[in-house]
Amino acid sequence: MKLKYALIGAGGLGGYYGGKLAQAGADIHFLLRSDYQQVVNNGLRVDSVKGDFHLHPVSAYASAEDMPVCDVVLVCLKTTSNHLLPELLKPIVHDQTLVLLIQNGLGIEDELAQAMPGLNVAGGLAFICSQKVGPGHIQHLDLGRLILGMHSSEGEDVLKQVCQDFEQAGVPTTFSEDLVLSRWQKLVWNVPFNGLAVVLDASTNQMMVNEDAKELAQELMLEVVHAANHCGCSLEEEFAAKMIATTMNMTPYAPSMKQDFDYQRPMEIEAIYAQPVKTARAAGFEMKKTAMLERQLRFMEARQQAKK
Amino acid sequence: MKLKYALIGAGGLGGYYGGKLAQAGADIHFLLRSDYQQVVNNGLRVDSVKGDFHLHPVSAYASAEDMPVCDVVLVCLKTTSNHLLPELLKPIVHDQTLVLLIQNGLGIEDELAQAMPGLNVAGGLAFICSQKVGPGHIQHLDLGRLILGMHSSEGEDVLKQVCQDFEQAGVPTTFSEDLVLSRWQKLVWNVPFNGLAVVLDASTNQMMVNEDAKELAQELMLEVVHAANHCGCSLEEEFAAKMIATTMNMTPYAPSMKQDFDYQRPMEIEAIYAQPVKTARAAGFEMKKTAMLERQLRFMEARQQAKK
Repeated sequence: MKLKYALIGAGGLGGYYGGKLAQAGADIHFLLRSDYQQVVNNGLRVDSVKGDFHLHPVSAYASAEDMPVCDVVLVCLKTTSNHLLPELLKPIVHDQTLVLLIQNGLGIEDELAQAMPGLNVAGGLAFICSQKVGPGHIQHLDLGRLILGMHSSEGEDVLKQVCQDFEQAGVPTTFSEDLVLSRWQKLVWNVPFNGLAVVLDASTNQMMVNEDAKELAQELMLEVVHAANHCGCSLEEEFAAKMIATTMNMTPYAPSMKQDFDYQRPMEIEAIYAQPVKTARAAGFEMKKTAMLERQLRFMEARQQAKK
Repeated sequence: MKLKYALIGAGGLGGYYGGKLAQAGADIHFLLRSDYQQVVNNGLRVDSVKGDFHLHPVSAYASAEDMPVCDVVLVCLKTTSNHLLPELLKPIVHDQTLVLLIQNGLGIEDELAQAMPGLNVAGGLAFICSQKVGPGHIQHLDLGRLILGMHSSEGEDVLKQVCQDFEQAGVPTTFSEDLVLSRWQKLVWNVPFNGLAVVLDASTNQMMVNEDAKELAQELMLEVVHAANHCGCSLEEEFAAKMIATTMNMTPYAPSMKQDFDYQRPMEIEAIYAQPVKTARAAGFEMKKTAMLERQLRFMEARQQAKK
């Protein structure tokens, strides 16, 4: 079965993963906004630590209305744009289409499934350092692994095919039997480093060489681990230490929220902070430090918005 | 009994309180460092919301060795200089001298009493917005109340005389029967506003008009209240709400730690954050948010020091 793919959101993340699939010969259609004309004229350029490549022509569209109906929709937008999804998805989904949210945070599949009842929804976590450096121009700096898992009861066969397609395209991809657990695992990294990078105006390596920032990152990680455990997701405390070690060895990198803040784009505070805090609270656990970081970020975002 | 006073640290705080005593005719001797020559030549100028005044001549000294032995030493240094106290105090104290630490934080009287056994030690809390705006030039913006209390068992009669002297000089002064409780009360304001002002780069009024910053300030206040209660100091939760209301009505003001940070002076992280966190922990209570703020401040201070 050859799947027909749509990709929404060809930024640092979507441009890389969509580009890899296209380069491997997948039937993939890109919905673009500001970069549409550039990509039509000059294609998509990916400078990658795993090998540069350039796609031209690219099957690019400026509007979802013009796109074909697809079997899989890869959503690589920031979660701050997820309110647009029902409108973007309607023209391109059929009864069995699987919508795969390759995004950060918690609770996003629930939100989409509630907005579009009957839709087959899956989720994905990307462990990657990549960024868009210009129109139609992606820079992939480090890592690249995907973890994909089902949210709906229907569509698992399609998701397993997606895993194979990514693997064949050279993207290490794991099928997760427990998407919510995988999301909590990703939060163990995202909660400390995204928020602290913004509040402390620091890169991951600046934090890793300072004992207080490193300890604080680890304390936040442990808080996420404990929250996950309260929510019925079994995570070990050792996982935090492993994540710190991984970060120590990472290429110096500004986490995505730091990039968003620096470019005055909305930050994913809701998906990465508010949702985990609410979910844990409902399970009887207060994520005190995470909630504090959330408030600090909201203050900083409000001030930035006021200055615009 | 007319007391002979020494004042160490004639900054925004010491310049105001020492100036008020001098203006009221007290026998007071100022130890000055960088401002010595300016004050000898031109006196001490205080621009105050309660009425400007100018003292000239001032009994000023460049070295403690040159000062007379005094009955009361008012210590108005930042706590970050308290390691200098034994050397500064030795030439100016007699057997019954009362050393009054008008400083922020917790545990500072203990530290001095341990360094100088037998010394009569008291503590004071200043509720004041004031700053040094130039050599020998103090600006008093708002408030001004003092709370003074004993640490040692000896010296209470002297401290009560000090209270009277301040009252006669126009400084509203309260004698506290429980200095440690008073210190925790002051921390209810200092813990949120000093640290958040630095980490969020914001003044108190910028925080008060943002719901997230205001909520976070109140959460930190409640954490201090709960810590105090665990340490045997009875404080009500309502006290936090009262402090928020006071802050809403305060003249826009950069807390002292923010001033220290902006002028690249050491911050009082140890006295205002580390000591309360340690004291509460020893009593079985984790000040999670306060400890997080402490780590953020230490990171910011380390980065600032590294840039020097």
